[in-house]
Amino acid sequence: MARVVLGMLGLGTVGTGVVELLSKHRHLTLKKVAVKSLDKDRSAMPSCPLTTDVDEIINDPEIEVLVEVMGGENPTVSYLEQAIKKRKHIVTANKEVLAKHGPRLFALAKEHGVAIFFEASVAGGVPLLSTIHKGLEANEIESITGILNGTTNFILSNMEAGKSYEAALKEAQDLGFAEADPTADVDGFDVAYKLSVLAALGFGHFVKPDTIYKEGIRNITEEDMALAKEFGYRIKLLGTAAKGSSNGSSKNTGFDVRVHPTLVPLEHPLASVSGPNNGIVVRGHAVGQLTLIGPGAGKLPTASAVVGDLMNLAGALKLPDFASYFQPAIEASPASAAPPLAWKCPFYLRLVVKDTPGVIGKIGNIFGTHNISISTIIQRGVEGKEATVVILTHDVLGKDMDAALDELKNCDFLSSLGNAIRIFRSA
Amino acid sequence: MARVVLGMLGLGTVGTGVVELLSKHRHLTLKKVAVKSLDKDRSAMPSCPLTTDVDEIINDPEIEVLVEVMGGENPTVSYLEQAIKKRKHIVTANKEVLAKHGPRLFALAKEHGVAIFFEASVAGGVPLLSTIHKGLEANEIESITGILNGTTNFILSNMEAGKSYEAALKEAQDLGFAEADPTADVDGFDVAYKLSVLAALGFGHFVKPDTIYKEGIRNITEEDMALAKEFGYRIKLLGTAAKGSSNGSSKNTGFDVRVHPTLVPLEHPLASVSGPNNGIVVRGHAVGQLTLIGPGAGKLPTASAVVGDLMNLAGALKLPDFASYFQPAIEASPASAAPPLAWKCPFYLRLVVKDTPGVIGKIGNIFGTHNISISTIIQRGVEGKEATVVILTHDVLGKDMDAALDELKNCDFLSSLGNAIRIFRSA
Repeated sequence: MARVVLGMLGLGTVGTGVVELLSKHRHLTLKKVAVKSLDKDRSAMPSCPLTTDVDEIINDPEIEVLVEVMGGENPTVSYLEQAIKKRKHIVTANKEVLAKHGPRLFALAKEHGVAIFFEASVAGGVPLLSTIHKGLEANEIESITGILNGTTNFILSNMEAGKSYEAALKEAQDLGFAEADPTADVDGFDVAYKLSVLAALGFGHFVKPDTIYKEGIRNITEEDMALAKEFGYRIKLLGTAAKGSSNGSSKNTGFDVRVHPTLVPLEHPLASVSGPNNGIVVRGHAVGQLTLIGPGAGKLPTASAVVGDLMNLAGALKLPDFASYFQPAIEASPASAAPPLAWKCPFYLRLVVKDTPGVIGKIGNIFGTHNISISTIIQRGVEGKEATVVILTHDVLGKDMDAALDELKNCDFLSSLGNAIRIFRSA
Repeated sequence: MARVVLGMLGLGTVGTGVVELLSKHRHLTLKKVAVKSLDKDRSAMPSCPLTTDVDEIINDPEIEVLVEVMGGENPTVSYLEQAIKKRKHIVTANKEVLAKHGPRLFALAKEHGVAIFFEASVAGGVPLLSTIHKGLEANEIESITGILNGTTNFILSNMEAGKSYEAALKEAQDLGFAEADPTADVDGFDVAYKLSVLAALGFGHFVKPDTIYKEGIRNITEEDMALAKEFGYRIKLLGTAAKGSSNGSSKNTGFDVRVHPTLVPLEHPLASVSGPNNGIVVRGHAVGQLTLIGPGAGKLPTASAVVGDLMNLAGALKLPDFASYFQPAIEASPASAAPPLAWKCPFYLRLVVKDTPGVIGKIGNIFGTHNISISTIIQRGVEGKEATVVILTHDVLGKDMDAALDELKNCDFLSSLGNAIRIFRSA
């Protein structure tokens, strides 16, 4: 196999894994790694010089491929731009940079005749991107939906065992699954970036991350988890990217891209995705439904995706015009996601109410007014005190549910709106 | 995109699907299709001539790629050989031909500088082969295990609802999921062929199908299904191909390739694979465990795999030396599977016994003599009549279980050995 010379930005968890896996592939020669500081104690030191000067890598004409595993938006994006202009191929694990600057970076790469490989940017070790791009090549992709963030899935899995959100988050932090500031994970930003990348691959358009509806897991309680289980569901944080709208009409209203907690039926394969794993359902017009489940993060799984990209790239590098064969067709302009008002799905609602006579009737009337059909309603609690009302609905338009909840909030009998969570519906 | 001229052998279910999907890809020109008879009424007639003379396709120098979806061993294998010698690339869905003649066909293809693509030969629409070959390129594959036959999974899923094997088989036949002679499916031959192909891709060796241990589903009863569920399992027909032995020792005893019914824990992703779907767990040294679930058969899913191969092949055909990049490295000599005596796994046993005092003690003694540790034993039935004893064991060596069962069969208290089924253990 022809020798390919690599440079790498970053030597954190993933970078260390890349060094470890590369040791078995001598034709992939890591020439230099750029790090923030040379003082750090490194357990897996690569057999190549470290530098704190990124320019040493970007300006080295012998380096053909830049492996970017430093993460973050800035200054990473400018390093990538410079490297592309120096005609280096890119292998990156950086969903944030791709989601925010993908259209520009891919246009730039095309202009300079280089390729960007990015398997590791979504779903860690799960070869989701190559599956969509090559494995399902004969399919028009209709939707991609699933558990794309291992941290929140770990937290939710632990909450099923009865832990509070706070306790489960703390355990995730203690084990290194969650950051000290968990915002990117628990509020859905990380999933939104990944959905943008998936939309680019599946539908040819990056979707602007700030147009993607994001609802995180902070408000999920152990009571919600237990109630969901009682009704035959597990609560999972799902990301969805679908062509057209999911409101059931035939009118295509653009891309339906969103992140929110979802009640998934226990018998659905996504319900079996536990701990820090990822699980994704891809729908294609010919294949129907395909599910992939595997490690969404971690040193060796993510490094396996990076090194897989490097091997595929290295094997093809000598082929003339290979970039045109291996690069997905992505439009230069990003798309926007549709607003949530037109989505249709069933809902789970948990209401805390004053236990006065006629409450169920009043709730039923409000829902009826807003075209909401109830499939199950139960009331629990000590008589004369506060009670919990749990409602499962049939399919509801987002705007109808918003309107009904607004009206409910003004009712005297409502102590608090415990939670309103969507129920899984095939995209 | 460059035009590629195709010929096809067979126009059954899959062939019809291929014609349907190809209509969207005008650069893939289907020039001629060979069929058994021109008299058959065909709902999806391709816009190209049909012929009953295979030579018209094999000897046509304009045809670059032969699509083989006629199935069966003979005369198919000789058609493939002739086509390869005429320097045609092959896209095939034929696991039987590959399992039985793969080493020779791949050597012949290498000699004549052509490629054999075979995604559709295993797991229908699930892009399992490209995932192993390209998606997990950076991994050493350790094991591949899963539900590889949709017909038997459909039958077993229906038996869970309380149907007998015979009734479930008849329904599968009525719906077209099972053949009139269901042997290839229900006795494990189909899975064995697929395992041989998977071993070639994952470990570099086809495994001779006649050396593969095959135990089918004919003896599974609805009582077994119900008991399994009671203990937290579902019975699935699993195929496994693993490197080395699975007897827990570090000594590599060759390839462990086998087909048998298995009790899978309800919370395992494979337990959620229902109806005619396939589900496969691949273990790689870096990625850990990856699960794929999707349609294992059917017109459009299987055609999606065939046409995906055609698109990948067509896109790369113009690249010089592409066969060497796209073809997996497969040894010219097939391997043999290890015999079952050295496998270690827990067992489920259902015994029908005469309800005399001390039976449980006698069974316990026999198992103890053969190093078999029991985790659960229960007895059910009307006093004084026949009773059912259900036993779940800890890990047992195959030869120890065989010896214990031989001894049990000679005991007066045993009316019949109801069933002995292996329990899932990560390969």
